[in-house]
Amino acid sequence: MEEQNIKRTDVNELGEFGLIEHITKYFIDIQDSTIKGIGDDAAVIFEPELATVVSTDMLVEGIHFDLMYSPLKHLGYKAIVVNLSDIYAMNAVPTQVTVSVAISNRFSVESMDELYAGMLAACEFYKVDLVGGDTTSSPKGMILSVTAIGHAKKEDIVYRNTAKPGDIICVSGDLGAAYIGLQILEREKQLFLSNPDLKTDLEDQEYIIGRQLKPEARWDIVKAFKSAGLIPTSMIDISDGLASEIFHICKQSKVGAVIEESKIPLHPDTETMALKFQIDPVTCALNGGEDYELLFTIDPSDLGKVRTMDDIFIIGDIVEAEQGIKLKTTGGNFHTIKAQGWKHF
Amino acid sequence: MEEQNIKRTDVNELGEFGLIEHITKYFIDIQDSTIKGIGDDAAVIFEPELATVVSTDMLVEGIHFDLMYSPLKHLGYKAIVVNLSDIYAMNAVPTQVTVSVAISNRFSVESMDELYAGMLAACEFYKVDLVGGDTTSSPKGMILSVTAIGHAKKEDIVYRNTAKPGDIICVSGDLGAAYIGLQILEREKQLFLSNPDLKTDLEDQEYIIGRQLKPEARWDIVKAFKSAGLIPTSMIDISDGLASEIFHICKQSKVGAVIEESKIPLHPDTETMALKFQIDPVTCALNGGEDYELLFTIDPSDLGKVRTMDDIFIIGDIVEAEQGIKLKTTGGNFHTIKAQGWKHF
Repeated sequence: MEEQNIKRTDVNELGEFGLIEHITKYFIDIQDSTIKGIGDDAAVIFEPELATVVSTDMLVEGIHFDLMYSPLKHLGYKAIVVNLSDIYAMNAVPTQVTVSVAISNRFSVESMDELYAGMLAACEFYKVDLVGGDTTSSPKGMILSVTAIGHAKKEDIVYRNTAKPGDIICVSGDLGAAYIGLQILEREKQLFLSNPDLKTDLEDQEYIIGRQLKPEARWDIVKAFKSAGLIPTSMIDISDGLASEIFHICKQSKVGAVIEESKIPLHPDTETMALKFQIDPVTCALNGGEDYELLFTIDPSDLGKVRTMDDIFIIGDIVEAEQGIKLKTTGGNFHTIKAQGWKHF
Repeated sequence: MEEQNIKRTDVNELGEFGLIEHITKYFIDIQDSTIKGIGDDAAVIFEPELATVVSTDMLVEGIHFDLMYSPLKHLGYKAIVVNLSDIYAMNAVPTQVTVSVAISNRFSVESMDELYAGMLAACEFYKVDLVGGDTTSSPKGMILSVTAIGHAKKEDIVYRNTAKPGDIICVSGDLGAAYIGLQILEREKQLFLSNPDLKTDLEDQEYIIGRQLKPEARWDIVKAFKSAGLIPTSMIDISDGLASEIFHICKQSKVGAVIEESKIPLHPDTETMALKFQIDPVTCALNGGEDYELLFTIDPSDLGKVRTMDDIFIIGDIVEAEQGIKLKTTGGNFHTIKAQGWKHF
């Protein structure tokens, strides 16, 4: 957290132009398609023949993140990653990002350094160029807005509205951990607020807390699709929970779905901690969100290709719209799945 | 202003997905390059052979706008226009925008309708598609983040770093009015706050107030360049004032400049009101900002092309870097121009 820094330089000492220069100096453009990065009225990208995909997200302090338990470096990393996840969800490869940051005067130059160090780490790992943005002040708190840009062959792009009855529903990774991670962090925050001298021990919860604070986007799955010559029939990333995402696919594709409860992938730590919190682990997977895994459907003829890939789980089937969107429980019952989404308002 | 609406629907009644559907239903994609607009993980744009230009801006309530005198519809219009201005400043044509909005619970669905009506008006006038964005809540006030995307032939794009000694400095329109407009609105706000029963009379200040509340981007100048077969040697839009912008061009092009005070275009209303406020009108032009005119340089061999264009003024010359960046006053003296920029922090 920024309070831990010993040195505190007021952003006014640098001014707007100085601050931009200071925080962007470590960013080096590596993509061939980046013709002009930071420093003009607009960035210039040239990638002839490929289609451009664009996604944007706004993250607001007190709504999407809490700086009491989100280190600024992790926050910077996550802000980039959640946007890249949307690009991968189109079966495209991210190449550029723009980042806008508004900060109140409680943030120092050193805290901006932390935030941008996290963004730089994400840009380097995912090989994307930071090509533009805006830095301004806010009357209260921090607001981040990231726009991610990627490229793909037009015919390789995968949408949400193209699933068809008979398709097989797949998901990558495991679900629900990010939500349980948030519950742990919220609990620790309350404990800390009630007694600041309490020492917290989060060591054996590394996996689930990492899923909340420093998620990764599934570049490896999109790469595996390419290697296997597989194009999913529809795809979406899991930011709001499995229930919301399957609902989006079904609504836009005008189909129904049956998801088997027993096949939803859960990490053992998620199950253990969910039970400690007296929450059904499947509910975490369905309605938790922030897992940034990929939910996709494939034609049954592609089943062989998926079976050879790591970390992909078959969880159900696309059916006719009239059959609705159902969860088949381990007991054999059918429950209607409802989109929850985030209730920010 | 949103307080004037009689009906007040809480955004919670619609929820996040409902609100997005509600506010975007009037937006229709018209650009051929828009393959997929709102409704997937990312928008898809396909414009083979042309380069893509991308610019982004964040507008924060209490910093960049004051809802006491900015009607939401004007604010929505302006938020789009200021981003399109950056695209035109690259000698490109804007084609798509994404818009993210964070609002506190004091904003109703009706106030969102006003804001998006202004955005829609701008999108329709400038023929750009709203292809994506984000809607979320904020603990305080309104934050807007707009990303504009445009296209141009790679070889037609005009940068800031390509002016050379001997080039002629030109500017479109007139400068300083937006700043004086802001002073008038601020004064009226203070008068209103001291006595809410006072009737304000802004009628004869329509032009300057319009320049502040509802600026336009110079699409017509970029079109005229194309018709005349002119490509400026460098270009930037005037968002922070002439001084800042010429400073950016000179710094990045490693050149100096001489601007003639007597040639800086000022609207008669700007001069009249500036004198009433006891501000030098030229200072408004140099350091005021928000004019969204184009500042550009041309090769002297293109002088004939510029002379036939409307609303373009020749204000000075690019010189060697060693000569610095100077204002030649009407009295014949030379003053060094310093970049002011906005002091938001």
